[in-house]
Amino acid sequence: MTDPISSAGNPLVKRLRRLAQRRHRQAEQVCVVEGIQPIRQAHEAGWGIDTLVVADALVRADSAHAFVDLAERDGVRVVRLTAELFTRLSERDGPTGLLAIVRTGDRSASPPDRPAGAATWVAVDRLGNPGNLGTILRTADATGAAGVLLVGPTADPWDRATIRASMGAVFSVPVTRLDDLAALRSWAREQDAQLVTTAARAEHTLWDVDFAERVVLVLGSEQEGLDDDSLAEADLAVSIPMTGTAESLNLAQAATVLMYEVWRQRVAAD
Amino acid sequence: MTDPISSAGNPLVKRLRRLAQRRHRQAEQVCVVEGIQPIRQAHEAGWGIDTLVVADALVRADSAHAFVDLAERDGVRVVRLTAELFTRLSERDGPTGLLAIVRTGDRSASPPDRPAGAATWVAVDRLGNPGNLGTILRTADATGAAGVLLVGPTADPWDRATIRASMGAVFSVPVTRLDDLAALRSWAREQDAQLVTTAARAEHTLWDVDFAERVVLVLGSEQEGLDDDSLAEADLAVSIPMTGTAESLNLAQAATVLMYEVWRQRVAAD
Repeated sequence: MTDPISSAGNPLVKRLRRLAQRRHRQAEQVCVVEGIQPIRQAHEAGWGIDTLVVADALVRADSAHAFVDLAERDGVRVVRLTAELFTRLSERDGPTGLLAIVRTGDRSASPPDRPAGAATWVAVDRLGNPGNLGTILRTADATGAAGVLLVGPTADPWDRATIRASMGAVFSVPVTRLDDLAALRSWAREQDAQLVTTAARAEHTLWDVDFAERVVLVLGSEQEGLDDDSLAEADLAVSIPMTGTAESLNLAQAATVLMYEVWRQRVAAD
Repeated sequence: MTDPISSAGNPLVKRLRRLAQRRHRQAEQVCVVEGIQPIRQAHEAGWGIDTLVVADALVRADSAHAFVDLAERDGVRVVRLTAELFTRLSERDGPTGLLAIVRTGDRSASPPDRPAGAATWVAVDRLGNPGNLGTILRTADATGAAGVLLVGPTADPWDRATIRASMGAVFSVPVTRLDDLAALRSWAREQDAQLVTTAARAEHTLWDVDFAERVVLVLGSEQEGLDDDSLAEADLAVSIPMTGTAESLNLAQAATVLMYEVWRQRVAAD
């Protein structure tokens, strides 16, 4: 085994730093993933690993060592760094000693196949925060959503903050990009799905409506919410009950309340 | 009006930097709040303002200017900074031009009065992330929770990240500190409240149990969850349904699902 890389000037290290920028990730069609759990999730979901970056001294779990050995035998390129250099590249408080450059291809170009039954999608319009997007992906995975729809300019699903907050769910949940709310509207029609938005002054709460049909739950941006036009285009607007001094919920919380209520109703109806 | 402060060496500026540290906040019994909305919320909930820090050029909302004028007439100390210096002290992408040093006193030393009826509390055991705590406070406010209980060493409710994520709800929701889970157990007995924990392998889901009684919803730390002892001490353990590849939800999402399901059941029972 050669000595681990210790120089910040090494081409791989420079490449990893470049990949913090969205345009470089898009040009190379890769993302950077830290930690054994999301890396394994990417691998098991069939995403190709370009390079594994390992700091042996930092890797604690035997299962992580075993994963690296197996990948190396399968022909994956494995590069070793010193613990010190790895720590500088890590975005974790406790660096895990394991990074992967994962090939993202262009999966989002084609929408997922039309799922059967009472499917649920979550659409986010101009969502800016990668952590919020990751959290929504994680809850979408947990509630069995058919996919997450990114409408207009949104945070990058391949941002390290998104991947981390998603706990790897970004590799499992189908993600589809759409240009704008009009495209979302057409997409929902093709899927025979209702567009459901939230509005503080909606006539019914989400507890009072029947979510038996296929639905797309539409959420606006953190700052601006949905504009009046998009609200007018929805098939249904519901309110999320709120009391106290709160004017709104955090976007990811609102998404969670919606996804779990839809799922609860469907389980109760079975 | 004197010239706005432009020097980073000014005593007030140094004090604001010091207050980024918990021990200085505790010693002075104050916190730092940015933005008109949470500052107004603190003021309206009866918390005293020690100092208002204003960069006039950055303040956009007329209502914020009016608030500062009114506070100044009421005898609140108002200090003006240059936009440049304010921006360096701001933790926002778009600095709002308005910071307040708010007196926190020692409210958390005494538990809130015993509320009547089917009250709900949220207890967090060793919760580390201020953003998660803030989000839980925001949802607790929105769902009318009777209070949030901080068990053991937790993130500081007066951290700027907590206050920001709470959108000011930290000034409205009663917060009580308890040393450990045994103290929580005693506290819940005094309140005639059931201790409800979550466990992946619990016999019932949160949708299958009846939350008509007074409850304390207990959540563990982000990394470790609740230990077996605390699970054994609970009156009831419920699971939050999950499918897909997810092993767990983000802590704030789990809290949200629990708080909204309890509230939904009580509204439905009315």
